[in-house]
Amino acid sequence: MGAAHSSATCLSSPATTNIPRCYLFHRVSKPSSNSSSIPTIYLHLQKPTSNFISQNHYSLKSPCSSSKIVPLSCARVRLMETQEGSASKPVIDFHGIDEELIQKMAYDALVWSSLHGLVVGDKSVQRSGKVPGVGMVHAPFALLPVAFPENHWKSACEVAPVFNELIDRVSLDGNFLQDSLSRTKKVDVFTSRLLDIHSKVLEMNKTEEIRLGLHRSDYMLDEQTKLLLHIEINTISSSFPGLSCLVSDLHRSLLKRYGEHLGLDSKRIPSNTTVNRFADALAKAWTEYNNPRAAVMVVVQPEEHNMYDQHWLCAALKEKHNVTAIRKTLAEIDKEGELLPDGTLLVGGQAIAVVYFRTGYAPTDYPSEAEWRARLLMEQSLAIKCPSISYHLAGTKKIQQELAKPNVLERFLENKEDITKLQKCFAGLWSLDDSDIVKRAIERPELFVMKPQREGGGNNIYGDDVKENLLRLQREGNEEDAAYILMQRIFPIVSPMFLVRNGICHKDHAVSELGVYSAYLRNKDKVIINDQCGYLMRTKVSSSNEGGVAAGFAVLDSMYLT
Amino acid sequence: MGAAHSSATCLSSPATTNIPRCYLFHRVSKPSSNSSSIPTIYLHLQKPTSNFISQNHYSLKSPCSSSKIVPLSCARVRLMETQEGSASKPVIDFHGIDEELIQKMAYDALVWSSLHGLVVGDKSVQRSGKVPGVGMVHAPFALLPVAFPENHWKSACEVAPVFNELIDRVSLDGNFLQDSLSRTKKVDVFTSRLLDIHSKVLEMNKTEEIRLGLHRSDYMLDEQTKLLLHIEINTISSSFPGLSCLVSDLHRSLLKRYGEHLGLDSKRIPSNTTVNRFADALAKAWTEYNNPRAAVMVVVQPEEHNMYDQHWLCAALKEKHNVTAIRKTLAEIDKEGELLPDGTLLVGGQAIAVVYFRTGYAPTDYPSEAEWRARLLMEQSLAIKCPSISYHLAGTKKIQQELAKPNVLERFLENKEDITKLQKCFAGLWSLDDSDIVKRAIERPELFVMKPQREGGGNNIYGDDVKENLLRLQREGNEEDAAYILMQRIFPIVSPMFLVRNGICHKDHAVSELGVYSAYLRNKDKVIINDQCGYLMRTKVSSSNEGGVAAGFAVLDSMYLT
Repeated sequence: MGAAHSSATCLSSPATTNIPRCYLFHRVSKPSSNSSSIPTIYLHLQKPTSNFISQNHYSLKSPCSSSKIVPLSCARVRLMETQEGSASKPVIDFHGIDEELIQKMAYDALVWSSLHGLVVGDKSVQRSGKVPGVGMVHAPFALLPVAFPENHWKSACEVAPVFNELIDRVSLDGNFLQDSLSRTKKVDVFTSRLLDIHSKVLEMNKTEEIRLGLHRSDYMLDEQTKLLLHIEINTISSSFPGLSCLVSDLHRSLLKRYGEHLGLDSKRIPSNTTVNRFADALAKAWTEYNNPRAAVMVVVQPEEHNMYDQHWLCAALKEKHNVTAIRKTLAEIDKEGELLPDGTLLVGGQAIAVVYFRTGYAPTDYPSEAEWRARLLMEQSLAIKCPSISYHLAGTKKIQQELAKPNVLERFLENKEDITKLQKCFAGLWSLDDSDIVKRAIERPELFVMKPQREGGGNNIYGDDVKENLLRLQREGNEEDAAYILMQRIFPIVSPMFLVRNGICHKDHAVSELGVYSAYLRNKDKVIINDQCGYLMRTKVSSSNEGGVAAGFAVLDSMYLT
Repeated sequence: MGAAHSSATCLSSPATTNIPRCYLFHRVSKPSSNSSSIPTIYLHLQKPTSNFISQNHYSLKSPCSSSKIVPLSCARVRLMETQEGSASKPVIDFHGIDEELIQKMAYDALVWSSLHGLVVGDKSVQRSGKVPGVGMVHAPFALLPVAFPENHWKSACEVAPVFNELIDRVSLDGNFLQDSLSRTKKVDVFTSRLLDIHSKVLEMNKTEEIRLGLHRSDYMLDEQTKLLLHIEINTISSSFPGLSCLVSDLHRSLLKRYGEHLGLDSKRIPSNTTVNRFADALAKAWTEYNNPRAAVMVVVQPEEHNMYDQHWLCAALKEKHNVTAIRKTLAEIDKEGELLPDGTLLVGGQAIAVVYFRTGYAPTDYPSEAEWRARLLMEQSLAIKCPSISYHLAGTKKIQQELAKPNVLERFLENKEDITKLQKCFAGLWSLDDSDIVKRAIERPELFVMKPQREGGGNNIYGDDVKENLLRLQREGNEEDAAYILMQRIFPIVSPMFLVRNGICHKDHAVSELGVYSAYLRNKDKVIINDQCGYLMRTKVSSSNEGGVAAGFAVLDSMYLT
């Protein structure tokens, strides 16, 4: 799924135009009552100094130079409580935290990030996506964790193994995958190519005995319904297992130092060990494969500015488990890869135990037939694929929409409690052949998002465009409607936050999205791992509308349990 | 002393022209016998891949694009032994280490550096010397540690406390400092300003009860004499206490992974904990000052690309000792500083317990009177200065030359063994009023280096220029000769090494210099700390001559005991 791509792109230059999964951050039509009182503020970081403003440090050019620059007012952080209690509107009020304190914290946070490897490649620097160690910049981060209700966090953790199991069951039902995607296949070349590989694998009658999933389920807290709604599960290339842990550590470190001033307790940031849990899962899969000389292969993009996130995972794999990982692009795998008669995958002469995808989820990842050949080669091998083609397909939007239909979950899961848990968090998802919902979406387009099957595009449709596109599809009457699904539009809680990007601290209204990592490993009938593994919180300014998503400002964040 | 400046500059762009302390890396007129067989090789790092060369990765532009690019031959590392045994010529032979192995190691090393904060600001990126977290690049490093005889390492450690004591004793003898520098004062404005401050402090009749020194003694192993010769002691702004430890960790990590292939054992890299030892010393000094609300103040340059080295030290100070450090430039101290009647130094309203200089050693650090006022203000305060003006003066070249004269050490030290230890490691140092030595230097200029008192200049004079300048000074007959000393030219061992800079691995002949950190803390009669604290190894290509020093290639290194 486009998660990895989306995130990496969102975290890059504001001028980037290709922002997939922009629906993560819907335009919020109902800003909270205090929104107008919060100006956009750019703190141009120098050394912390008490007379920061007076020293003309603002002469440093801001990437958003049109924004008004004013000092913050002074006050202390408090937890806001609504009539319904903190769980219903958990917001850390950043109004008027002492300006000097913010400066100190931001400076310390930037230092911490630099010393502790919370870094990405800076797209403005040549070679920064190819050569490690050059052109590094701190990963964008929120200065403080986002308040989050503990009960919702617990529910999301509880449901993670159920999602894991669901994906595994769905992936086993080849006919369900092929049938559900049959209309999409006609209008979406990318899905069609994935289905072709899936068909070939089905024809081989090959049993994937060892199955590894490293997923991330994404959620938003809907302000209206007070529900934590599931947006999607990413079964391929879930990004930030490495850096997300570091952001939790960063916030814990800041609260240890400044928490007393802020009235915040570092212990309320839940433990986040995704990188170690994912490394454990990869190592256990490697062990199940049972060839001590085989390696884990990370399938990477030719240029990867989020490489350090991946390197953290490989470092944990090596240091904790002494398992070696190699990095290969799809083109390299096509060139260097071969299948031995026994099904062993060799790449550059190296036997591969586990294939871990950090690319391959978007059409742009397959610029030529070489990449498709590589994908098929891996799929035909005995190597453990994370994910296999069937796991990949099980995570597509269309399949998730199918699973949200009445009585479909029952086809894959027996436990009624599990089914209820899943259904409770599903947002509304509909096919465009549901004429009632299409009619309603034309009437109230602001309540819906039109989502293309295509990943990695940033082609989500909002507002009046939903209405116009639905009317156009009705007029044209062709199969193109199969390329889309409709999703309930989520209106997340908006709160003022401090976002730090490219060395600049910026205060704005923002919305947050929770990602819950999970790992699943099964060998034949033996389920070896089925666990929640940690979390990713992402925060983005809420003011970007559909057209302006490219100017978005997404940062890594952690959570503060309330 | 210019150590910090020198190192930071040497580690920056090859195009930089201002490289102080270039005498660290003399032109080696007698290259080892195998020198002609080692081409200069640039490995343009991509992902490690077995057919690296064939994939046109060399198309990435090298900063030294004129260098010939050829693959390395294959062989394994071994320790070279000469007739005199390994201690006399300890060289890890890097001839023909397997090319693929080098690529893998360099890639892993670059990743390690990025994840573990072995970074500096990249001068080519705006704001990288001001704002942490932006424009980072790995610190330049040697891929493998340099072989070093254990006996020499032990001697250097043993003599460190003696040097500490010597500096303290010399600093107490105001007349010795003033007298020794009286001629220099007439021709060197900078030394003159330092002496003025020193005089004012003497007039105040102020007793510095708490005295803190964080020194670094620099040595080179002379190939001819087989002696470890002392080059200088840096009593101000000794750089790299933070990053040097990380390079030792990096090398240990590489040898743990690849040592078996290389025949090298990671345990032979001595423990290097400078950053913690220096933090301990600063914290203990802070404790002696005995004001829980006071801070340590790091005096910094307005732009500092080596800031992460300093941040590591401050992080250790905070995390291990909960002592807060603030960062101020000399100009800021002039603006925000004040002296309370009781001698307390306040900067921006913050009481200062310890002033730790990471600037202030070169004329360029004092662009206006403001900086000199700041220096005097601090000197007049009760804050513990690291270093005080007298420690600073005690570390000047002229004083070190005076100390090398017969019977001068005896004036400051009682213990004859200690005196012998020091004398054993002193290189030849002479004043230009020694006519015999001037005559000899005119006859054999290749055996001498002419060193200016002025720090931070890169004005050292070598070869025929020594002769010409000495003859000129004789003709002119003015006092200018007091601006220089003569030093025995050291011919260090040259060995082929892999140097990694800006993401590029480069093989060349190189020479290494050892720096031994030491800490000294005394409160009245009580010596609280007097210890060796760790080491810095620096390695530089040996082929740069005097004129070409600006193209130099100095990298951080560690040592492999033989």
